Amino acid sequence: MKGEFDFITRHFRPLAGEESLDLRDDCALIPFASKFSGQEIAVSTDTMVENVHFLPSDPPYTLGKKLLRCNLSDLAAMGASPYAYTLNVTVPKLDKYNDAWFQDFSRGLKEDQSFYDIHLIGGDTTSTSGPLVLSATIFGTVPQGQALRRNTAQIGDSLWVTGTIGDAALGLLALQSKIPDPTGFLTQRYRLPEPKTTLKLNTIVNAAMDISDGLLQDSQHLSHESGVFISIWPHKVPRSQAARKLGNEWLELCLTGGDDYELLLACSPSNEKALQHECLEKNVQITKIGYMASGQGVRLLNEADQTIPFPKRLGWQHF
Amino acid sequence: MKGEFDFITRHFRPLAGEESLDLRDDCALIPFASKFSGQEIAVSTDTMVENVHFLPSDPPYTLGKKLLRCNLSDLAAMGASPYAYTLNVTVPKLDKYNDAWFQDFSRGLKEDQSFYDIHLIGGDTTSTSGPLVLSATIFGTVPQGQALRRNTAQIGDSLWVTGTIGDAALGLLALQSKIPDPTGFLTQRYRLPEPKTTLKLNTIVNAAMDISDGLLQDSQHLSHESGVFISIWPHKVPRSQAARKLGNEWLELCLTGGDDYELLLACSPSNEKALQHECLEKNVQITKIGYMASGQGVRLLNEADQTIPFPKRLGWQHF
Repeated sequence: MKGEFDFITRHFRPLAGEESLDLRDDCALIPFASKFSGQEIAVSTDTMVENVHFLPSDPPYTLGKKLLRCNLSDLAAMGASPYAYTLNVTVPKLDKYNDAWFQDFSRGLKEDQSFYDIHLIGGDTTSTSGPLVLSATIFGTVPQGQALRRNTAQIGDSLWVTGTIGDAALGLLALQSKIPDPTGFLTQRYRLPEPKTTLKLNTIVNAAMDISDGLLQDSQHLSHESGVFISIWPHKVPRSQAARKLGNEWLELCLTGGDDYELLLACSPSNEKALQHECLEKNVQITKIGYMASGQGVRLLNEADQTIPFPKRLGWQHF
Repeated sequence: MKGEFDFITRHFRPLAGEESLDLRDDCALIPFASKFSGQEIAVSTDTMVENVHFLPSDPPYTLGKKLLRCNLSDLAAMGASPYAYTLNVTVPKLDKYNDAWFQDFSRGLKEDQSFYDIHLIGGDTTSTSGPLVLSATIFGTVPQGQALRRNTAQIGDSLWVTGTIGDAALGLLALQSKIPDPTGFLTQRYRLPEPKTTLKLNTIVNAAMDISDGLLQDSQHLSHESGVFISIWPHKVPRSQAARKLGNEWLELCLTGGDDYELLLACSPSNEKALQHECLEKNVQITKIGYMASGQGVRLLNEADQTIPFPKRLGWQHF
């Protein structure tokens, strides 16, 4: 008993908001009704498993951040403001997971809590004979009826992405010593996604989702959910300087690799200026990469607007 | 992609409530403000790990139920009404976890969803090289300011427990072939806790918590959090017929074993009748097992009210 409670006191109580009741009771209590009148609650949950979603060599300092940021990206995709989260940590019985490890882990969480203005309200710590498993459930608020959906893209909308695409997939390869990453930029992008939580797009775009399984696969989801036919110009897909330096033979990986945590947006022509203005205000790169027409599915177009072959492996297979 | 989405469609979409947006979007959306005016939201999360919280031989049909019920027990301990949950399933890459396994798993969930009037609103499915890990985050509602806490027991209160104590710990031993369980009752109690979600005790008892780490250890928590000195009569601790049949040498295990998921309650003498009445109405066994005085800590008293030695191993060590 003492071990567990001391452990929570040391590492997690400093992260806890008042709703957590100091992580000492059976539940957290959120006074939603009095605190968020006229708001809906957006809830998302993500699990990260060692050797599947992160590497054993990834520093604990970035692991908690990555977990939070993947969840925050889901909130950003709904246009919800981050509020709080619960955390489930399932830890291997190995010497590696000592006090120093958890100090680094919770230091990373603490920094991101402060940066994204969220706090911990509950959790569970368990042990396992297997790899490290981290789950977080995140809560955000969004004005009633204004959540952004992925099933509301319209025919005639243009397709946009934030940031640059493919860096995280390349970062994973760099960490596996398969490609060079002299500046460490790609590695950083794999370890620390940058969810676009500051953007207020609820009244600007028609549809939004986050890109986590690869741009092309997620575009297929958008197409399927909204019932639109999506055309994408691969040569317009924004790539970082580090990604471009590797050469065009890596373009396909950028289009299909996972872990971008950028936003995929559908915007009517009349709101494109507003979209660009909001992104400029918030210092977020935004690029038009395609458009929606009637039909179903996704195609790729070259610079002459001719259809080009579609990659076979489309993106991250979860399961 | 297809694999994962088909999988979710088959096994989890039938469990999903409307807030889940059919489990097709980045977040679930809960219209708390319009749905639960004047209520607080109680949130609890629990993780169960194979070989730690359940056995590889436990049927998938009961696994999902057990996970839900452990979480529901936390809601019951706060006096909150169950509402919805998210589910994180981290599955070993083994043939065992096939479609039939998930059919049984989700059938169990479905039954309990119906019984406890809750539904699924989101989740994540991942794979692992290690053992099965299941996490659920559960949401309940409680009238503003009426949540039951574990830090509000009063000097002079009597101590009560629901149900019978120790069955689950004995059930685990039975499953390990260390003790007989001819009727299967103890095994059943290990696999399927019965959270006391129907009790409405918010205005009756002074404090409540659920017993998950062993009666004595959880009594220490209650003592510590409330700042009271607790006396317990072990001979009054209710044991099932199956537990009593094993003999008094198993009493200590009953007092210290985990997984009871019964409620530990502090009730002022003036409300004891109301407590008994509510439990009678809801067909829940309730037993007075001790009392609170000034001080800190827990002691055991024999039938002559003399202090008797305290067991060394106090209960479940999480970590």
